Amino acid sequence: MHESPLERLIHLLGKLPGLGPRSARRAALHMIKYRESVMQPLHQAMAQVAESIRVCNQCGNLDSQDPCAICASERRDNSIICVVEEVGDLWAIERSQIFSGRYIVLGGTLSALDGRGPSELNIAKLIEKAANPEVMEVILATNATVDGQTTAHYITEHLKDCDVKVSRLAYGIPIGGELDYLDDGTLGAALRSRQPF
Amino acid sequence: MHESPLERLIHLLGKLPGLGPRSARRAALHMIKYRESVMQPLHQAMAQVAESIRVCNQCGNLDSQDPCAICASERRDNSIICVVEEVGDLWAIERSQIFSGRYIVLGGTLSALDGRGPSELNIAKLIEKAANPEVMEVILATNATVDGQTTAHYITEHLKDCDVKVSRLAYGIPIGGELDYLDDGTLGAALRSRQPF
Repeated sequence: MHESPLERLIHLLGKLPGLGPRSARRAALHMIKYRESVMQPLHQAMAQVAESIRVCNQCGNLDSQDPCAICASERRDNSIICVVEEVGDLWAIERSQIFSGRYIVLGGTLSALDGRGPSELNIAKLIEKAANPEVMEVILATNATVDGQTTAHYITEHLKDCDVKVSRLAYGIPIGGELDYLDDGTLGAALRSRQPF
Repeated sequence: MHESPLERLIHLLGKLPGLGPRSARRAALHMIKYRESVMQPLHQAMAQVAESIRVCNQCGNLDSQDPCAICASERRDNSIICVVEEVGDLWAIERSQIFSGRYIVLGGTLSALDGRGPSELNIAKLIEKAANPEVMEVILATNATVDGQTTAHYITEHLKDCDVKVSRLAYGIPIGGELDYLDDGTLGAALRSRQPF
């Protein structure tokens, strides 16, 4: 059967992460109900983003300028590089307001399953940057998943020749977390990495 | 501070029902990552919907034709009208495939709080339709909320002069529902409306 424009919109909205068929229907109806105040601005914003947002050739971040605002800033610390998987991870770290160094966005992880090898990630750029004598430390902030950790190990191997300290994020209990609800892996990691009180 | 195009897109996505700030960020990144396969088709679909979808002047449904496919169909039962609050409710009933009559979409409920009176709803159209001698029954399928029920009562009053049966949806335990998880109101309604086994 031929899909109507409305069905097509719902179908496409439903493909966005976090939206199922039901919320896609609600979103589509909401858009139509608020054509001027919701749909039109959203439509324009999408066009603007498509037109203006590009990948920073320095770090892989997304911004309307290249190099991105973080790479272009002179107030950031050149001696430390934080390696993340995706742009969303970079944003998450920026929101924490605790890191003021530079970034490298890998663009994913190594994955045998998905057939993603080192050449598809931003690793060459990282090694090039890490070779700069100004750089003292590389923080591997990949996800605490099998693929994330495999990637971190791979990168550590390839940073051996650079004279930098390589660190990773701490594992442990999330702030506000209750022991009873934590998985064994997290609890085990928190125990192993216990700190003097 | 001036909002960047990307921030603006995330802000607007976050206003859609069912999307919070976090899922809006993920959706925006997903769009940028899959520019050709996700963002462009979505952008086009929105333009098409904005251009082609209109409100059916017979029932208030949304469709690319006016009257809508349901009103235009000759295979639907003219003797029964189902009154719903919103287009989403009409779709939900259509999905159940159990109703083959006509619809009236009110476009909301009476609401003292939001200052919505009868003139803002599709009630005049309903009364006009119900006055047709062909019509035997009006089903009030408004939500089981205070506003929904107030609206249903108001409509019942105004249908007194029409020679039609006025019914409402049954209250009771949802199929698959467990008693222990039901609220007192539903359980009470289910008890009061108990049926011979």
